[in-house]
Amino acid sequence: MGKKQGTSTSVRDALRVRPGGGIPHEPRDTPVGPKSKAQAAEGLAETGAELGRLQEALWVEGTFGGGDRSVLLVLQGMDTSGKGGTIEHVFGLLNPQGVRIASFKKPTPAEKRHDFLWRIRKQVPTAGLIGVFDRSHYEDVLVVRVDELVPPAQWEPRFDQINEFEAELAEAGTTVVKCFLNISADEQRERLLARLETPEKQWKHNPGDLDVRAKWTDYEQAYADVLDRCSTEDAPWYAIPADRKWYRNWSIARILLETLRDLDPQLPAPDYDVAAELKRLKENDPLLAGEAG
Amino acid sequence: MGKKQGTSTSVRDALRVRPGGGIPHEPRDTPVGPKSKAQAAEGLAETGAELGRLQEALWVEGTFGGGDRSVLLVLQGMDTSGKGGTIEHVFGLLNPQGVRIASFKKPTPAEKRHDFLWRIRKQVPTAGLIGVFDRSHYEDVLVVRVDELVPPAQWEPRFDQINEFEAELAEAGTTVVKCFLNISADEQRERLLARLETPEKQWKHNPGDLDVRAKWTDYEQAYADVLDRCSTEDAPWYAIPADRKWYRNWSIARILLETLRDLDPQLPAPDYDVAAELKRLKENDPLLAGEAG
Repeated sequence: MGKKQGTSTSVRDALRVRPGGGIPHEPRDTPVGPKSKAQAAEGLAETGAELGRLQEALWVEGTFGGGDRSVLLVLQGMDTSGKGGTIEHVFGLLNPQGVRIASFKKPTPAEKRHDFLWRIRKQVPTAGLIGVFDRSHYEDVLVVRVDELVPPAQWEPRFDQINEFEAELAEAGTTVVKCFLNISADEQRERLLARLETPEKQWKHNPGDLDVRAKWTDYEQAYADVLDRCSTEDAPWYAIPADRKWYRNWSIARILLETLRDLDPQLPAPDYDVAAELKRLKENDPLLAGEAG
Repeated sequence: MGKKQGTSTSVRDALRVRPGGGIPHEPRDTPVGPKSKAQAAEGLAETGAELGRLQEALWVEGTFGGGDRSVLLVLQGMDTSGKGGTIEHVFGLLNPQGVRIASFKKPTPAEKRHDFLWRIRKQVPTAGLIGVFDRSHYEDVLVVRVDELVPPAQWEPRFDQINEFEAELAEAGTTVVKCFLNISADEQRERLLARLETPEKQWKHNPGDLDVRAKWTDYEQAYADVLDRCSTEDAPWYAIPADRKWYRNWSIARILLETLRDLDPQLPAPDYDVAAELKRLKENDPLLAGEAG
């Protein structure tokens, strides 16, 4: 299960965060799978082909077959860790019809009047879809905690509330996969410099990003608690070594692939009489060949 | 403008429907551009690279730059004409973050209680996005007319209402591009047979599709009126020769490309002091290289 050529170990096993175990690798590591960009590109293309077939089956199952299953990929990570790049390169492999992307920015005043999960629930993928959260409900125990936007008594219970929410999703048919894009402070510095020094990337920079960077160790602590307290059986966290973009894309694509293989979505059997339909078209076609068009 | 290697004529000029002019080609024609599948694949890859850059600029302009522009591609055509395949192959070239796909099926009871444009308005792409309508408000002058779901006095005024609606969209910054996927009755027959004879395609078949096929000439008339009455300056119709899938994908991608070239979206200039930010990061980085991560 979840094993294929070039990958003798399940990527999910290798990258999964286990409570109490911390992050099982460094940001530049390549603990399983390709060791070079070229190998990763080849692996990604292969993965993409199989992913595409499985995605179609999931979509058909959920759209035409009465199935209730879906997949939700949660992406979290520091600025420049590659959430957008992952969406572009991994989800570019899939049929856009079956993908829903939700980006969670600073909540609006209307959103703030509700429970922190209110705006999240509205974006949970429906049957057949693969949803992606670009940031998520985890911001409510990350930036909210680091910047002290609410007191500890308010964010502290959220770990349990999140675990309950994700267990509900699992129960309702949504497989939740959470990826923490783990970059190093050095790599972030390089990427911030590259943004500032490349005119067509300057729009990506926001002076606030440097203020956030200054709180790096606070975020490390906040992420450590998130990974420790919310990597559950129902909704595990995977820590993705993200200093190398090719490894990040490859490993997230593989985690999705292993997830879909487990789901093993099935095309529904026809609910009509195939032979009768064929006969109708072959013998009683109201449009004789060549008559119209 | 809109011209590049391999295509000395604008694809929009070649495929545009002009009121009173009918459909300017046959479903198997290749009036401009590639003459083979291989040529089309090459052209599509080239087009994709440029489309990707322009799409990013449109998205940034609309998301970060305060722009209000967007693009809406409307896809219409008989069953099997390739609306889904177009979305998969053309929109697979784009960054999924900037794409919104809306499929319009038989209206729900709630939708029926409103004006026919009510559900449509909710799906108009917001600033920076490229929206795709898989079927659209045109169903309200197609299936609704052919199946006499409402009397002529009700659908007849809709041509003008649609033109007004689309002019409003144009006014508000949405460039509307409408593609009619023109397949022949013979080609539809082949595709229906292929669905029925290929187990992994059987889910696509619906016995109702053969009933619709039986009304081919009624639909031809209804489409002719749509193309004649609703191909406006603000929102032209393009008739896409769609018997050859490679030609369909190539020509729609090129029409999008020509559209985006005209829009010429611009990355916003930085609204911060680039030199100051660089200095901050280079001289005052709160995280000394190697300290964290």
